Amino acid sequence: MKIGFIGLGNMGSAMAANLLSAGHEVLAYNRSRDRVVALAERGATPVPTVAAACEGDVVFTMLADDTAVESVTFGDTGIVAALAPGAIHVSASTISVALSEKLTAAHAEAGQMFVSAPVFGRPEAAAAAKLFVVAAGPHDAVTSLQPAFEAIGQRTYVMSEEPKTANLVKLSGNFLIASVIESLGEAMALVSKAGVDRQTYLELLTSTLFAAPAYQTYGGLLARKQFEPAGFAAHLGLKDVRLVLAAGEQLEVPLPVASLIRDRFLTLLAGGGRDLDWSALGALADWEAGGPRPGSG
Amino acid sequence: MKIGFIGLGNMGSAMAANLLSAGHEVLAYNRSRDRVVALAERGATPVPTVAAACEGDVVFTMLADDTAVESVTFGDTGIVAALAPGAIHVSASTISVALSEKLTAAHAEAGQMFVSAPVFGRPEAAAAAKLFVVAAGPHDAVTSLQPAFEAIGQRTYVMSEEPKTANLVKLSGNFLIASVIESLGEAMALVSKAGVDRQTYLELLTSTLFAAPAYQTYGGLLARKQFEPAGFAAHLGLKDVRLVLAAGEQLEVPLPVASLIRDRFLTLLAGGGRDLDWSALGALADWEAGGPRPGSG
Amino acid sequence: MKIGFIGLGNMGSAMAANLLSAGHEVLAYNRSRDRVVALAERGATPVPTVAAACEGDVVFTMLADDTAVESVTFGDTGIVAALAPGAIHVSASTISVALSEKLTAAHAEAGQMFVSAPVFGRPEAAAAAKLFVVAAGPHDAVTSLQPAFEAIGQRTYVMSEEPKTANLVKLSGNFLIASVIESLGEAMALVSKAGVDRQTYLELLTSTLFAAPAYQTYGGLLARKQFEPAGFAAHLGLKDVRLVLAAGEQLEVPLPVASLIRDRFLTLLAGGGRDLDWSALGALADWEAGGPRPGSG
Amino acid sequence: MKIGFIGLGNMGSAMAANLLSAGHEVLAYNRSRDRVVALAERGATPVPTVAAACEGDVVFTMLADDTAVESVTFGDTGIVAALAPGAIHVSASTISVALSEKLTAAHAEAGQMFVSAPVFGRPEAAAAAKLFVVAAGPHDAVTSLQPAFEAIGQRTYVMSEEPKTANLVKLSGNFLIASVIESLGEAMALVSKAGVDRQTYLELLTSTLFAAPAYQTYGGLLARKQFEPAGFAAHLGLKDVRLVLAAGEQLEVPLPVASLIRDRFLTLLAGGGRDLDWSALGALADWEAGGPRPGSG
Repeated sequence: MKIGFIGLGNMGSAMAANLLSAGHEVLAYNRSRDRVVALAERGATPVPTVAAACEGDVVFTMLADDTAVESVTFGDTGIVAALAPGAIHVSASTISVALSEKLTAAHAEAGQMFVSAPVFGRPEAAAAAKLFVVAAGPHDAVTSLQPAFEAIGQRTYVMSEEPKTANLVKLSGNFLIASVIESLGEAMALVSKAGVDRQTYLELLTSTLFAAPAYQTYGGLLARKQFEPAGFAAHLGLKDVRLVLAAGEQLEVPLPVASLIRDRFLTLLAGGGRDLDWSALGALADWEAGGPRPGSG
Repeated sequence: MKIGFIGLGNMGSAMAANLLSAGHEVLAYNRSRDRVVALAERGATPVPTVAAACEGDVVFTMLADDTAVESVTFGDTGIVAALAPGAIHVSASTISVALSEKLTAAHAEAGQMFVSAPVFGRPEAAAAAKLFVVAAGPHDAVTSLQPAFEAIGQRTYVMSEEPKTANLVKLSGNFLIASVIESLGEAMALVSKAGVDRQTYLELLTSTLFAAPAYQTYGGLLARKQFEPAGFAAHLGLKDVRLVLAAGEQLEVPLPVASLIRDRFLTLLAGGGRDLDWSALGALADWEAGGPRPGSG
Repeated sequence: MKIGFIGLGNMGSAMAANLLSAGHEVLAYNRSRDRVVALAERGATPVPTVAAACEGDVVFTMLADDTAVESVTFGDTGIVAALAPGAIHVSASTISVALSEKLTAAHAEAGQMFVSAPVFGRPEAAAAAKLFVVAAGPHDAVTSLQPAFEAIGQRTYVMSEEPKTANLVKLSGNFLIASVIESLGEAMALVSKAGVDRQTYLELLTSTLFAAPAYQTYGGLLARKQFEPAGFAAHLGLKDVRLVLAAGEQLEVPLPVASLIRDRFLTLLAGGGRDLDWSALGALADWEAGGPRPGSG
Repeated sequence: MKIGFIGLGNMGSAMAANLLSAGHEVLAYNRSRDRVVALAERGATPVPTVAAACEGDVVFTMLADDTAVESVTFGDTGIVAALAPGAIHVSASTISVALSEKLTAAHAEAGQMFVSAPVFGRPEAAAAAKLFVVAAGPHDAVTSLQPAFEAIGQRTYVMSEEPKTANLVKLSGNFLIASVIESLGEAMALVSKAGVDRQTYLELLTSTLFAAPAYQTYGGLLARKQFEPAGFAAHLGLKDVRLVLAAGEQLEVPLPVASLIRDRFLTLLAGGGRDLDWSALGALADWEAGGPRPGSG
């Protein structure tokens, strides 16, 4: 397939590289050019504009937030204006349910197709083509995208024909990860203040009832208190919790653990932790229990 | 080994049966006699008093709470009075850190040994000898107990020579399970109100980042809203959260997720959910979002 | 003064009537016409458009939310387009800090003045000209408005020359009221379940440490469980808590009590309580403790 | 009346002095003797033992917690053993509902009377005889105590003939004060980070909807960040929140704001704030928003 790729951050660069490795043609666009150059060395065709990235059958966007996705999608030089009828916009970004609804409507009106395909996994998983893809959109479009999804992930889960359900599920997944970080952080603060070794404790948990990647990955970062460099920055974690709370408000579903996590992300940011890995959230429990403030040096 | 076993509820009966299967001699005591009769059919020796259960090398207690353990341990006819010097009291119950300290001191003064060995696992796991044993106590005592632990569990984790650390770790584990129930409950209330199928959602979670027994077991109960019969009753869940909060207070470690869970257990009980499975905690999110009250019929 | 008045709900009608009583000329505009007719009987001049309400020295807006204020302010037929240079837009609505910033900029660019003057008080206080006015804006503008403020309120507090500070203070005040409702609701659920009379309890509180209107007004509604008709509807309470949380997020100030209140408003709305008085928030504690759901009939 | 007084801390000394001023005979007992000497200078009769303080018609206890009250009440040399039949034990301490039940039973069995009469007010109010007395107990006993209550307080509220209801109401009142401190602390952190002056803000609040002593007293301490010397220490605040939560648990009434406050008291203590005034609780919001940790110097 001829695939445009817009957004070459840590995640996007790895995904685009795996599309190249799988034999796809990739038209690479990024606001800052150095990432494009790096990808060109691996075989991508650099393109100078968003519109130029829309000349294929499919264009992926993998950007930081709603604002970034809106800025490349709408307007005279945006994706909706540039994409051919019948071509597909695949949004892999973690965006709001509200924006997903808006994108679905805009592409439908322009005779194009819109598929939401947010992914689970950190940059290492993206590099290893081990992402989990959560896809939703028109059946034929999703089917035709299988080769691309297989190139970037280890498995694809199709939720429904409504793109926004994939976004809601992705947001809920990030909420569940954040709640693992928070509850593990509290538990580790407790047992370690009593003298139990954090690593031994984690090993017990992750070889028994909590033998899952979420506990292994984030528990390991928490046990080692290793919050730099960030695989996923705290301010992006806050953004996702805000989006899940907004979705909950629209649906009238209170989410008290999410509310608690939102407050704690604000505390983390107010203390200088904006660019730490979001697992630093779990170190606030140690801080409250008398330890050092995460991010304060 | 000749092992006394005090407390033949769902968990204790299964554990004692596995000790019998592994070739140990079991002196079985329970307040209500029918459980003793059932176990005698599998080869146990029924004994009429706590003291009679203390005639072996080791006596296990597997009881519902601190009060029950205290009532069989202290007083003229209790374990401390009856146990031979050098014999071991193994407390497999989920008890408070404070009681663990008290038991450690009392047995030491009587020239006996005390080992804390709480277990992770529901009645099905106990029946299948698949429990996880978290042990702490004097090194020699813990070593000599290995055959017994192997009979009841799939793996033993030795925490330290201080019995109470095993209790703290057990309580923290129950807190982590409860936080899985709560956060999964919130996430399911959210996505299901948007039309996503709960079972499909759970499958996505448990085949990816959350591929762990805690999510599979409790997620399954939540997805099916199957809260009876209780594997572990809500009022016992509340008890454990209370104990973990008490331990946190003693150590000056705030545990905000545990506080939230405590409040929600109270809500569950106030609505008649005392004897439901503790996973019903997660159905409060559906209730708040407009659904039926768990336990109300 | 010749004063336009846009927005004749319970609050706005009472305020406009008091401006008339104080001798001001009032150009009255409202989307639904019956309220205009009622005010015309008290001496107001009905006007058919927003622009026509802008023909005086000052135009007040007293509307339900940001969207309503934006819809009458911007666009070809809005206040910014219609108001004379040097004239003043007084926003008495409870709006977001973000919109206040936007209005300040828009009027400055058009050579007009913008004053934020949100008020504290329920409809009865508005009718009695007993509101408290919290004003912020250019010094001369605020000074020239004193006669109008005196007509509607019992006292005016000038915060600063930055209009948005008045909005932030107003939102924080509504948050404080909501936290009174929530904490009183919890306390009443507790003592009344123990058999203490709610009215006696309230009398003790409000004649001692809590002898303040917030406790008298909302405590009375809670003690009597009288949530209809709404002086201020629950969904408007939710809106204000959302705005205070948004302001906190912008400033990186976590507000855990506000988060808790937001969740509880969602619970109230999900149960059908959208149009109850916001004091019904405090009845959720009784509901959780086993009582009936507020709003369920 | 001839009144024994046990417990001469800041509160007790002031109350006993006012009993003397009103013409009562006071038998003064305190564990550390310097307070007794000071009171003797004002006319009290020093007594060397608890039993000697029980030689009058009435004995007051005003002690820090349950443990202290139990230690002077029970045992061979305690109040129950020493008090004459028909004499009255007045407990003015803030104790648990559970202990109040226990004291009621013990005195009844000994043919004595027990009245709970906890008070609202800080040491300055105690010194000025401006306390509020919340009394509950047998009607005749409460009536006969009126002269004593009038000597120490400005008004007495009789709750019921069950002593424990007074304790529950007192605890709930302290919870309400703590929730004022917490919510005011959050609001001040918010507006002050936006540049609003804390003292001006407090003046607005306390001359309008929140014109009550609780807001004036604690708001003033918070606005000035003046947490030493402690009128009521943080660790005692934590104790009372723990007792109100325990009462809520017994009655199956969840109290989410109380849970939040308990966690924050733990944070305050873990950071070295144990002996600060409990209003320091409200400064945690500034700390979370990026300010200094209360109690850290």
